[in-house]
Amino acid sequence: MNIQFRTIGFIKTDSPTVPRHWTISNVAGKIIIDEEYMKGLKDIQKGQDIMVIFYFHQSPEFTLDHLIQSPPHHNKRLGVFSTCSPMRPNPIGMSVLRVVDREEHILYVTGLDMVDRTPILDIKPLTGLKRERAL
Amino acid sequence: MNIQFRTIGFIKTDSPTVPRHWTISNVAGKIIIDEEYMKGLKDIQKGQDIMVIFYFHQSPEFTLDHLIQSPPHHNKRLGVFSTCSPMRPNPIGMSVLRVVDREEHILYVTGLDMVDRTPILDIKPLTGLKRERAL
Repeated sequence: MNIQFRTIGFIKTDSPTVPRHWTISNVAGKIIIDEEYMKGLKDIQKGQDIMVIFYFHQSPEFTLDHLIQSPPHHNKRLGVFSTCSPMRPNPIGMSVLRVVDREEHILYVTGLDMVDRTPILDIKPLTGLKRERAL
Repeated sequence: MNIQFRTIGFIKTDSPTVPRHWTISNVAGKIIIDEEYMKGLKDIQKGQDIMVIFYFHQSPEFTLDHLIQSPPHHNKRLGVFSTCSPMRPNPIGMSVLRVVDREEHILYVTGLDMVDRTPILDIKPLTGLKRERAL
């Protein structure tokens, strides 16, 4: 079964590189949401953590060789579903970002581990979850 | 920009109804992953919480009227990106499930808030996050 999604916005950051995971990132940038969806952002508050679902648009195509991978910070070879690798059957990423400000259809955020121009698929509240370590 | 994903498995549960959110669910069931991806599950352990990304396959088509919604447990009308509603620009769901057991390509889980036959897109570790309330 194939499923089609559409980009609802993208990441904008001046940082030429990003850390491998949001838990260790201080990188700032913006989430620029398409203006047609702006009203959906109205209850996102300064200081809030949001869950951002995005598309790993630069990942090489997934092959079954990627079912077992060695993440850069592990010695162990892990099953892909126990890693945050961008090479996965569906290249969907999830990062928790801190909202610094909101202005019309733009969210100013920190904690980026996505590169400039990364396509955004969804934003969700962090209901039922919290950061393991406070910021 | 349109993006195509593929189903990697689906939910199987005998429960005819499910709660509105995984935080209040005790419903048990299985995640049946396509056998070709089985090796990717090898490091998922009994007792572990996993993040499951899925497709809201029964949602009516999203229209801009859905940008503001009244969730069933709120009096307030909220922007869609502050809700877990299945009616969103991309009908992507995220639930945190507790793994009770693993057997080949099947994960036995509790905490289901997806209906029987829900298509699965990805499974991720809960890196950097924990439940707000312990189970």
